[in-house]
Amino acid sequence: MEYVAEKCVNLRIFEDNQGKMNRSLLDTGGQALVVSQFTLHADTRKGRRPSFNRAAPPDIAKSMYEQFVQRLRTFGIHTETGVFGAYMQVEIHNTGPVTLMIDSEI
Amino acid sequence: MEYVAEKCVNLRIFEDNQGKMNRSLLDTGGQALVVSQFTLHADTRKGRRPSFNRAAPPDIAKSMYEQFVQRLRTFGIHTETGVFGAYMQVEIHNTGPVTLMIDSEI
Repeated sequence: MEYVAEKCVNLRIFEDNQGKMNRSLLDTGGQALVVSQFTLHADTRKGRRPSFNRAAPPDIAKSMYEQFVQRLRTFGIHTETGVFGAYMQVEIHNTGPVTLMIDSEI
Repeated sequence: MEYVAEKCVNLRIFEDNQGKMNRSLLDTGGQALVVSQFTLHADTRKGRRPSFNRAAPPDIAKSMYEQFVQRLRTFGIHTETGVFGAYMQVEIHNTGPVTLMIDSEI
């Protein structure tokens, strides 16, 4: 969690005045919205029905999600969250678009 | 491309009447919006600056993107696209939210 949170706040993924990816979330004074999404762990290789066996059980996943949010807040990032495990409608405005995957061993 | 397109149209990721993930894009008569995004191939492991070395050169990437769009249309899916390589603002309404990663060897 520490590794992923550190990447999220420090990766230079926002534009500077020259339009180059040069500024981090901390540099820009940005905020975070954290939404858990177990479907990212779907295994789609077999047949037509995705398998979610690789996703953590809800109690473990919820604890990791909460740790991650706490870490971001420790960096001074104003962090809003979704509701863990809830059915939600998430509205995203993706400028660029830019989407990165950051993973860690645990 | 054939593999990924076939997964996109046939994976059972939409809800049936009982709220179960049971229906595919073909089953629901849904449409597709295809937006290319090289940042998904960012390597964020070293330091604070993402590396995009793993992303394909633009000419190869554009050809693959166009092939993918054509494959979807061959399945009878109404498919809209973004503009390859352009700076865009993409508005997404993600219900669930549900996001899956589908990858192939080439």
